[in-house]
Amino acid sequence: MMLARTMMRRVAAACKKGVRNGTPSTTRTINTQMDDSYPILISPSLVSLDLPDIWPTNSSPNEFRSTCRCSNEQTAAIIDGKSIAGEIMSRIACEVWRMKESIGRVPGLAVIMVGQRRDSQTYVRNKIKACEETGIKSSMTELHGNCKEDEVVNVLSRFNADPSIHGILLQLPLPQHLDEEKILDVMSLEKDVDGFHPLNIGNLAMRGRQPLFIPCTPKGCIELLMRSGVEIMGKKAVVIGRSNIVGLPTSLLLQRHHATVSIVHAFTKNPEQITCEADIVVTAAGVPNLVRGNWLKPGAVVIDVGTNPIEDPSCEFGYRLTGDVCYEEAVRVASAVTPVPGGVGPMTIAMLLSNTLDSAKRAYDFT
Amino acid sequence: MMLARTMMRRVAAACKKGVRNGTPSTTRTINTQMDDSYPILISPSLVSLDLPDIWPTNSSPNEFRSTCRCSNEQTAAIIDGKSIAGEIMSRIACEVWRMKESIGRVPGLAVIMVGQRRDSQTYVRNKIKACEETGIKSSMTELHGNCKEDEVVNVLSRFNADPSIHGILLQLPLPQHLDEEKILDVMSLEKDVDGFHPLNIGNLAMRGRQPLFIPCTPKGCIELLMRSGVEIMGKKAVVIGRSNIVGLPTSLLLQRHHATVSIVHAFTKNPEQITCEADIVVTAAGVPNLVRGNWLKPGAVVIDVGTNPIEDPSCEFGYRLTGDVCYEEAVRVASAVTPVPGGVGPMTIAMLLSNTLDSAKRAYDFT
Repeated sequence: MMLARTMMRRVAAACKKGVRNGTPSTTRTINTQMDDSYPILISPSLVSLDLPDIWPTNSSPNEFRSTCRCSNEQTAAIIDGKSIAGEIMSRIACEVWRMKESIGRVPGLAVIMVGQRRDSQTYVRNKIKACEETGIKSSMTELHGNCKEDEVVNVLSRFNADPSIHGILLQLPLPQHLDEEKILDVMSLEKDVDGFHPLNIGNLAMRGRQPLFIPCTPKGCIELLMRSGVEIMGKKAVVIGRSNIVGLPTSLLLQRHHATVSIVHAFTKNPEQITCEADIVVTAAGVPNLVRGNWLKPGAVVIDVGTNPIEDPSCEFGYRLTGDVCYEEAVRVASAVTPVPGGVGPMTIAMLLSNTLDSAKRAYDFT
Repeated sequence: MMLARTMMRRVAAACKKGVRNGTPSTTRTINTQMDDSYPILISPSLVSLDLPDIWPTNSSPNEFRSTCRCSNEQTAAIIDGKSIAGEIMSRIACEVWRMKESIGRVPGLAVIMVGQRRDSQTYVRNKIKACEETGIKSSMTELHGNCKEDEVVNVLSRFNADPSIHGILLQLPLPQHLDEEKILDVMSLEKDVDGFHPLNIGNLAMRGRQPLFIPCTPKGCIELLMRSGVEIMGKKAVVIGRSNIVGLPTSLLLQRHHATVSIVHAFTKNPEQITCEADIVVTAAGVPNLVRGNWLKPGAVVIDVGTNPIEDPSCEFGYRLTGDVCYEEAVRVASAVTPVPGGVGPMTIAMLLSNTLDSAKRAYDFT
């Protein structure tokens, strides 16, 4: 409690001074510093699909034909997700502070963790820490890995009913004996800041509909693209992987931004051929170094969502994280690449807080 | 009422004799006649996305490279949707008869039409006629084009509460002054036989989830592919158009069948290049003759959902229907093509009745 108060004081001071807490950007990184007149996110709340369908009458078939040539030196700028996320977090902190000053309330995020998966513990710890940094109230509930479905449902229901909680995060995956679908269906749609409810996904997919929340990682990917000045409309995008939490919603979101989207998955023949034609590649396959340099079109923008632990005795915990993309090769072909770690990961957390802030604003009718 | 009774008697007789009411197939058409031991639909109720993701380590990048060569003579078999739909309708009629014999109930479909659009009148008339042919009870409500939102909602609510109604069809589009989204949200999910509710679409999109109903036209497209012996898994599929009622759910459904799906829309650059690489092309753009012969890969299978009226004084009503595909060119490149009319259209109606039958079976716990 003392810590939160200290953080809030610091944030308030930072907001007044207009100082940002983003990590300084390094050479050849993309990290667009924007002034305070910009909204927290530059990606629109949701792109409408309602533009008129005007079909082209003529176009050159070879405009985007790829030759898959590799350079011998680095061509890619590094998209510094950590720095961009820091900037967004700083803006969120200012908004939280403004809310507290104006109406005496702050957003509240409840986190539920079942069991003791080490990776889940790390993710949850980072989320709680991010809440503290921005002044968002967090409430953590840890349940035993052998707990019954009813216990999880009871905790969820309690947070559903708590008006000081605006977002609920059930850390996935759950232990196998629990019915994930059944439990997730209990969560209040208004607090589903992860955006994983099928009604949210349906509304994300459909023209003319709007989900209450856009899933955090896909939203982070789009934000990275937009802050890096990458035009999405009309571009060929390939999403590798089709998971409910990343691949699927990312493909739907890219399509809302009027990209021409192809979804590559484990049953795709010649995935390298399809990927090689893309202007934008988002990988979320969970396979280390799946995407080699010759999978990429020269000049492509690569967003690597993969976070794969690789054994490495020289590292502190005996492993290091690597993405789905062979980074050393990608930087010699692409025009921009996200690193792992420090690319999409921090953005996911920033988007979670952004969704929680939006939810609180909605609940308090605060603009 | 007399008509329905007569039809039911005829159907009962047909069922007993094992006779089908499908139109006889013509030369070079695909219309797989199957014996009665097959289920009504051969497409599975839903393909799971839960197969393990085993990523390939090597594959030839040029296996599917298209050269877009055209032949001078017809290469394509014609997929006879009218005949296939007739066969399915016959099987539905048998099931309805069996239900009536066993539990004294029949499926009920309520159709609501607002206004007097000529195309909607035609569609609705065809659907009511198909109900009569299969013994499904239909209930038609026509509302004035100037009616208020409340009136439509009241009719919908009445059908929601009526246990003899298992499917409700609100013929779209509604007049502009009515809020389509708001009205559709009133419809009971258990009776949404069109499958357009966002929760249904979300469940269709998500791995491990199952919608109550699969939208009729996409379901009809998959059924046509499967009955024509077209393998979908691992194939490149292009869906042209991304409407909520055809393009979007078709792309989601093809992906559930493990095709590698690309969605082409009005903002796609070089749509012909992307389409030219597809093994399966489904067009639902609503643009007559958009897809020319040189858009197609030799041997591709083409499902044309387009139903575009073209002025033609020589025709009875002053117009004729044409698809999105330049048929004369497509038959010289593709391996199989659906005609317009007589391709997807009749399948849409057959799938509507199939969904209504499924809904009634679910309501009465009838297997």
